[in-house]
Amino acid sequence: MNHPPNPNIERLFALDRERMYLSKAAAVLHWDEETCLPPLAVEERAEQLAVLEGLAHEKLTGPETGELLDRCREDLRVRCGESPSGNDRFAADFLRVLERDYRRAVKLPPDFVRDSARAEGLSQAAWIKARKNSDFSAFAPHLEKMLTYARKRAEYWGFGSGSRNAGAASTAYDGLLDSFEPGMGEAEIDAVFGPLKERLQKLLRKIAASPKPDDGFLHLDYDLNSQREFSRELLDGLGFDRRRGRLDESAHPFTTTLGYNDVRVTTRYAQNDPMSGIFSLIHESGHAFYELALDPALKASCLAEGVSMGIHESQSRLWENVIGRSRAFWEGWFPAFKSRFSGQLAGVELPGFYRAVNAAGPSLIRTEADEVSYSLHIILRFELERRLVSGGLSVEDAPAAWNAAFGELFGLEVPNDAAGILQDVHWSMGAFGYFPSYALGNLYALQFWKKCTADIPRIETLLARREYAEIHGWLGEKIHAFGRRLLPAELLERVTGETLSALPFLEYLETKYAELYEF
Amino acid sequence: MNHPPNPNIERLFALDRERMYLSKAAAVLHWDEETCLPPLAVEERAEQLAVLEGLAHEKLTGPETGELLDRCREDLRVRCGESPSGNDRFAADFLRVLERDYRRAVKLPPDFVRDSARAEGLSQAAWIKARKNSDFSAFAPHLEKMLTYARKRAEYWGFGSGSRNAGAASTAYDGLLDSFEPGMGEAEIDAVFGPLKERLQKLLRKIAASPKPDDGFLHLDYDLNSQREFSRELLDGLGFDRRRGRLDESAHPFTTTLGYNDVRVTTRYAQNDPMSGIFSLIHESGHAFYELALDPALKASCLAEGVSMGIHESQSRLWENVIGRSRAFWEGWFPAFKSRFSGQLAGVELPGFYRAVNAAGPSLIRTEADEVSYSLHIILRFELERRLVSGGLSVEDAPAAWNAAFGELFGLEVPNDAAGILQDVHWSMGAFGYFPSYALGNLYALQFWKKCTADIPRIETLLARREYAEIHGWLGEKIHAFGRRLLPAELLERVTGETLSALPFLEYLETKYAELYEF
Repeated sequence: MNHPPNPNIERLFALDRERMYLSKAAAVLHWDEETCLPPLAVEERAEQLAVLEGLAHEKLTGPETGELLDRCREDLRVRCGESPSGNDRFAADFLRVLERDYRRAVKLPPDFVRDSARAEGLSQAAWIKARKNSDFSAFAPHLEKMLTYARKRAEYWGFGSGSRNAGAASTAYDGLLDSFEPGMGEAEIDAVFGPLKERLQKLLRKIAASPKPDDGFLHLDYDLNSQREFSRELLDGLGFDRRRGRLDESAHPFTTTLGYNDVRVTTRYAQNDPMSGIFSLIHESGHAFYELALDPALKASCLAEGVSMGIHESQSRLWENVIGRSRAFWEGWFPAFKSRFSGQLAGVELPGFYRAVNAAGPSLIRTEADEVSYSLHIILRFELERRLVSGGLSVEDAPAAWNAAFGELFGLEVPNDAAGILQDVHWSMGAFGYFPSYALGNLYALQFWKKCTADIPRIETLLARREYAEIHGWLGEKIHAFGRRLLPAELLERVTGETLSALPFLEYLETKYAELYEF
Repeated sequence: MNHPPNPNIERLFALDRERMYLSKAAAVLHWDEETCLPPLAVEERAEQLAVLEGLAHEKLTGPETGELLDRCREDLRVRCGESPSGNDRFAADFLRVLERDYRRAVKLPPDFVRDSARAEGLSQAAWIKARKNSDFSAFAPHLEKMLTYARKRAEYWGFGSGSRNAGAASTAYDGLLDSFEPGMGEAEIDAVFGPLKERLQKLLRKIAASPKPDDGFLHLDYDLNSQREFSRELLDGLGFDRRRGRLDESAHPFTTTLGYNDVRVTTRYAQNDPMSGIFSLIHESGHAFYELALDPALKASCLAEGVSMGIHESQSRLWENVIGRSRAFWEGWFPAFKSRFSGQLAGVELPGFYRAVNAAGPSLIRTEADEVSYSLHIILRFELERRLVSGGLSVEDAPAAWNAAFGELFGLEVPNDAAGILQDVHWSMGAFGYFPSYALGNLYALQFWKKCTADIPRIETLLARREYAEIHGWLGEKIHAFGRRLLPAELLERVTGETLSALPFLEYLETKYAELYEF
């Protein structure tokens, strides 16, 4: 970073860098925990992480940070007024993001942070047990507590009791959403989820009325080592640079950034479901490509991250679904896949394979849902959790509300709470406001993709040839490079000229499925 | 730990625990660097580690530590006088060790620490290049600098200019030795290395005059995956609890402790030298068994480590050589090894195999040396480095001195400095005083073993049956459990009733090799 010499901002850069290195060190310990840790070491690892995370928090919230932020903001205002440019623009972005992190951290009293962290631990443990026994009542008091902490957290942050921006009254749920999707409000999401829900339900009904594709050949016995080998071939083929990252295995696939040149993905393999590991891998690669294409000037600063959960998810879903479940993509990869599993795929050709990996229909479990029904699973959770947070729905009534909404959406009966309201970990961790990110990711992805395909007309040819460099280049330059320098809405506007919209996503799905299911 | 409530010592325990968790977090990052790190992430990992290690140093050297140490020592003296017992004994040991760590850290000025760390980095880089080109002159100025820093370090610690203990004047080299072997002085080592050198040389001459055993079958092609599988079988068979540790691969085998229940070993495999990986694995397991058998009361404190490099090495060498190169050990393992590599070992029986893995003779490279010549390689380094530190030998004259000493010891001519004075990393890191640990390890190992075999007369039968529980129990109770609570000399005296002696080691080797080489 080539900044004018200014001891205040240089000191702030240094403080931030130390905090980021500490939090990357914590990320290494987390990664190790998921992939390598000997089972009896789990408890001590939690202690080690608590020390690291406590120190990172201290680095962020020390009085020096607040004072330097004030001074640097004033320096910048005096020098540049309201429109800084070049290095000053960089400094302004840095100050805005660091200030956001700082304010959100210092506004929470230490006692509250400690107490809520402890309660989350207990809540998660109770949820695991409750899900196992499909016993919502055992989890209900913890859910109540998580909601109380969440409302209180939003209140500390200043949401729920005043106006969020000119003219719009904010809600507690706005405050929670803002943790995952900075600047996004409940009302905005409501405005897009409404039409999204209606048209997805319509599409799903059409699909249900059509003959189902045969996907039995995807549930035969697929040797795990051959799956591993294919995954490595695929990862390399997608352009993942293994000098800057790795692929490992874990119970739940994830991506983590341990350094500017150290982004790691994991997947898992199921003997009778090879596509599960493959699509997980492509999904996680999409997250990794984001983190690997950040502007090097952002390195080791608070700007060096994806800007929001929703934008991050737009990249993973773009790769997993829009690219990874396209016909052109498998024109490129089906021959390699079939040559590795020629027995299981004897007689299967590309068209049948393409239909099989896109089979859609109502399902009970979010994480197993197809591209069409997935967003409906999210909308259900959004509608329930906002009412839980506002108090419009009681914890006691929540399972019945879940089951009723589920029946209305999918025409399916929920057999038990384990396959219903207890299926996801998020609420047990107090992560209300997180779910919408997944559906926002779908919407952003298609808004970006519409622009990308307009800019690169021969994109299908490239996909069929397994040539991804131009796509990486476009995504990197237009989206990834910025890190947290732009807010999600600013980024979206800059890339597409649009505000949030469900239309590109709906048009994409309606076209794709009309062709797939021939209606 | 069940201590009487004392807020001062509880605070000191807490400070120490935080420091230890930070240093274990750093250990995770180091382990990851050696086993997993993507190549382009090396530089940023160094920055992350510098932050962690800096914070661990701050935790140790903060003014609070010094004040609390003074207060706690005084509390203890008032309550117990000079002979604390039970929990007070524990507290006294804790205070002694923490004070040692604290004094050694605060006596070094921060500028000195930073400058010498930077110089060590440059020196190591220069050494790598110099060794590659076999060009001592390119390394000489760095070695000079490392010696200057080492002397200065000893001076800051208070060595080299006064009396170390009643009546004995200390040297700078004493100060360096004390880093690796607390309480051990140059004169003491000299007294045992003298006779050791003489008798080992004599033994080596006898061996050289005898016919060499055939070990050609150990240099055929051994499939790497079969080697990996055998290593896992061996590790489990030795009693390594994989719920509390792991086995991985790295360029240089090592053991590291990432937590009380997280001790990891690595090895490496060579296609035409299966015993290299196997003996590395047994060696590292010996280190791991030490760390895994510490008293749980020591957990996450500064006491929870092996007490010295020499005692640690006694455990690794005991397992690698005394146990792992014994006939009884291979009575237990040869059938499993041969059944995995029946082609390579066709016609080979236990007696021939036992002779082959114990083949001895002069060699140029320390790390490839056998049990007999190994200690001679160490004595050569000890004799040179003490003269380098005292100034009795100049850097300029060092290569010639090395080559002359080598010729005198082994009757071999050193072909170039890469295979001579430049072969080891230690001096390039400024680690003078480290080498003796390796030979001390051999001596301690046999002093311990003599006692162990007296206490467990049927030990050969146990080894032949691959039953190690009783041996682990003995080593754990007599040696491992104490961690840093006893000084090396105190531990040795407590276990064996003896002071440091080369005799058990010499008698062991002379008996073993007289039988092996039939003289």
